[in-house]
Amino acid sequence: MFPTLNDIRQAAERIRPYAHHTPVLTNASLNEKLGAQVFLKCENFQKVGAFKFRGACNAVYSLSDAEAARGVSTHSSGNHAQALALAAKIRGIPAYIVMPSNAPTVKKDAVAGYGGIITFCEPTLEARESTLAKIAQETGAAVIHPYNNEKVIAGQGTAALELLDEIPDLDVIIAPVGGGGLLSGTSIAATEIKKGIRVIAGEPEMADDAFCSMQAGKIIASENPKTIADGLLTSLGDLTFPIIQQRVEQIVTVSEAGIIESMKYVWERAKIIIEPSSAVAIGVLWEKKIDLSGLKVGIIISGGNVDLGKLPW
Amino acid sequence: MFPTLNDIRQAAERIRPYAHHTPVLTNASLNEKLGAQVFLKCENFQKVGAFKFRGACNAVYSLSDAEAARGVSTHSSGNHAQALALAAKIRGIPAYIVMPSNAPTVKKDAVAGYGGIITFCEPTLEARESTLAKIAQETGAAVIHPYNNEKVIAGQGTAALELLDEIPDLDVIIAPVGGGGLLSGTSIAATEIKKGIRVIAGEPEMADDAFCSMQAGKIIASENPKTIADGLLTSLGDLTFPIIQQRVEQIVTVSEAGIIESMKYVWERAKIIIEPSSAVAIGVLWEKKIDLSGLKVGIIISGGNVDLGKLPW
Repeated sequence: MFPTLNDIRQAAERIRPYAHHTPVLTNASLNEKLGAQVFLKCENFQKVGAFKFRGACNAVYSLSDAEAARGVSTHSSGNHAQALALAAKIRGIPAYIVMPSNAPTVKKDAVAGYGGIITFCEPTLEARESTLAKIAQETGAAVIHPYNNEKVIAGQGTAALELLDEIPDLDVIIAPVGGGGLLSGTSIAATEIKKGIRVIAGEPEMADDAFCSMQAGKIIASENPKTIADGLLTSLGDLTFPIIQQRVEQIVTVSEAGIIESMKYVWERAKIIIEPSSAVAIGVLWEKKIDLSGLKVGIIISGGNVDLGKLPW
Repeated sequence: MFPTLNDIRQAAERIRPYAHHTPVLTNASLNEKLGAQVFLKCENFQKVGAFKFRGACNAVYSLSDAEAARGVSTHSSGNHAQALALAAKIRGIPAYIVMPSNAPTVKKDAVAGYGGIITFCEPTLEARESTLAKIAQETGAAVIHPYNNEKVIAGQGTAALELLDEIPDLDVIIAPVGGGGLLSGTSIAATEIKKGIRVIAGEPEMADDAFCSMQAGKIIASENPKTIADGLLTSLGDLTFPIIQQRVEQIVTVSEAGIIESMKYVWERAKIIIEPSSAVAIGVLWEKKIDLSGLKVGIIISGGNVDLGKLPW
């Protein structure tokens, strides 16, 4: 079932005691540089440093007590893993996390720090899924997919809900797209709350499977994508793709240079730490492939988890 | 004349159309690490990326039209220069800025970007002052000292005013101390608004002239200080010192390692860019030389202007 605006509103109530209501920041230099009035919804200030806590928290707290007692499990390249581990820790249940062996150190440490029980696997979708299936069978833990899960999608949509509550007259909302959980939740919230609002996604040129999927009218899987935006390596799911097809105006690809330049500019001017995946959303305006000049543009800053020892400049 | 709380309230009215009302952020990891309830007053999000805009803006808008027409001038290692240049630009008057030749590139570029007319000099207090005197004589511009100026002090005090308005039950306020403009403005606002509040300053061990001045009961000038906290190299003034003597409980020195560790931790966990001078205030809690455990501590995050090409880790 596709989540509805009502599901997103219920998610907002469910996660309210645990998640941050994040601030919306504006910056004069950024507006001038991007040629639009930009409103940054700062999910980098969210618990675990990413929007992913919203979806994970909604999924964990949607379980019955009996289900929850057996724990939760997932595979994730990073932020979803941290998010699920923390949500499980708050509810007092175990979280079994399958992570690719090449995940950033800072993300591995964070998952362990939140009490997640980690199993490493090869960095392929196949290895992740088979490892996860084995663990779920052994433990009986509920599998919480990082994005192809209606509770997760509804949770991710709560960021846009808050943003539109604060800035109701946005013309456009931009979010990055990887597996499509944030984008589909955002697009449901935005288009249901405000008829005519434009929802646009940013995607790395080097991991443009969602762009290709939209062109083809069917899911094109990403194959060994290589991009600095390591949160956006995954392919769309059968739940997220039709939502995106129906509600997202277009997907704009962003070059690696555009991602890095956008990221550095936001650090320098807005004084906030954003991760490359967030810079992909800024990059849509930065590279000016489409004309959004003068419009009021909300941007979901998806997260701020960066290894400060390995900066790309 | 020493500024009063009323002067600070008037400054707040005067700068309201131009300065940001900055957010106060909290962070669970930071609270746990520092052992206190910490409230970050984010002047890194202020115009020009530092609290200095408050004082400069108050000084510029306190001039009569006839005075303003001749422009303003100052010497500064960076943030005050940017602040004065921008405040002057907004009022439509020239700003003559004397900068030490070794100021960070990012700060030189920013001053030029705000339309400041820069003259470089040797990086000594003597060279700065003689160069400035010459320029002021030639142009008739009003000299706006970076800190030893009552309008500047009153302007800087507006950050603490806003912080206490939002979090009225603070036990302690911590600010960094260089020339003492921020600290004296903060201490006037805090102690007048809330009797019994403790005002504590952080100062680099490697530039401990304010600490030494408090011990000696007279101004001890700093001599060629070398610290990463390049905003805190200056000595106290005859206006700031007596205010600090009267209203500041103590000055706590922070090691270079403590500054860098605090700075990195705040970047990693709070996801905000803070400059080393701001980390000095965090460092007071980080190094635990004094016991503030369990208290509600407001910290003025003085700024976020950092050269991202030269990080100290």
